[in-house]
Amino acid sequence: MMQIIAPAESGVETPDDHFILREDIEYAGLHLLLDLWEAKYLDDIKHIEKAMRQCVEACGATLLHIHLHHFSSSGGVSGVAVLAESHMSVHTWPERNYAAFDLFMCGDAEPENAIPVLKRAFYPGRMEVTEALRGRVSR
Amino acid sequence: MMQIIAPAESGVETPDDHFILREDIEYAGLHLLLDLWEAKYLDDIKHIEKAMRQCVEACGATLLHIHLHHFSSSGGVSGVAVLAESHMSVHTWPERNYAAFDLFMCGDAEPENAIPVLKRAFYPGRMEVTEALRGRVSR
Repeated sequence: MMQIIAPAESGVETPDDHFILREDIEYAGLHLLLDLWEAKYLDDIKHIEKAMRQCVEACGATLLHIHLHHFSSSGGVSGVAVLAESHMSVHTWPERNYAAFDLFMCGDAEPENAIPVLKRAFYPGRMEVTEALRGRVSR
Repeated sequence: MMQIIAPAESGVETPDDHFILREDIEYAGLHLLLDLWEAKYLDDIKHIEKAMRQCVEACGATLLHIHLHHFSSSGGVSGVAVLAESHMSVHTWPERNYAAFDLFMCGDAEPENAIPVLKRAFYPGRMEVTEALRGRVSR
């Protein structure tokens, strides 16, 4: 009999309210905090918006609203995207070559897919990734 | 000679680029993740927007842009606010009485001041607070 190899996603269920059930842990969504250092193009608002849109697509999320603000004093950019699956944000400090992204996604979206997109867009010398499971239900 | 008692904030310096220097730790800003359980009014978009505006004011931050979205299917609300000091977001699951807030603030703004505002607005039975220092500089 041929063995069926289950895909990695097979343990994932999404209840009607989009809480995630994975390996007996139930939670609302995964919140990734991404700190990019020695990064480029952090004062280029058009480039940053394009990268955010690419991230949303790569994560399999749905964009509902996006807004970016360019600070005239520093050249830094702040941006937020509201998603059907939660949100993405960015804040950049070009003078430090530092950018802080966060991606919070529930349902089937995969925020970790943003990591290679951000690497390609901003060439960070170093990236720190912090994960938080939001809305974890005690069982 | 009269002794000068320094205020608690005297150890805080804000360089020109708004990185924070506190007790020899230099970082871009404080990112608070707030999980509210057994909370009320989580399908009331006007109430949620009002509470977000009150939080921004209580934290001493400056609102640049705010956008909230009401999901017709669940009654849940997603909202983001772009601040001069970074951002605030909210996502609610009324059917779970659960809300996920995050506040990222640099400079002199104090995101922890949002906690009592959210307690007064949503009467959570339980609140989990997670702190992340974003953009921490190795010294």
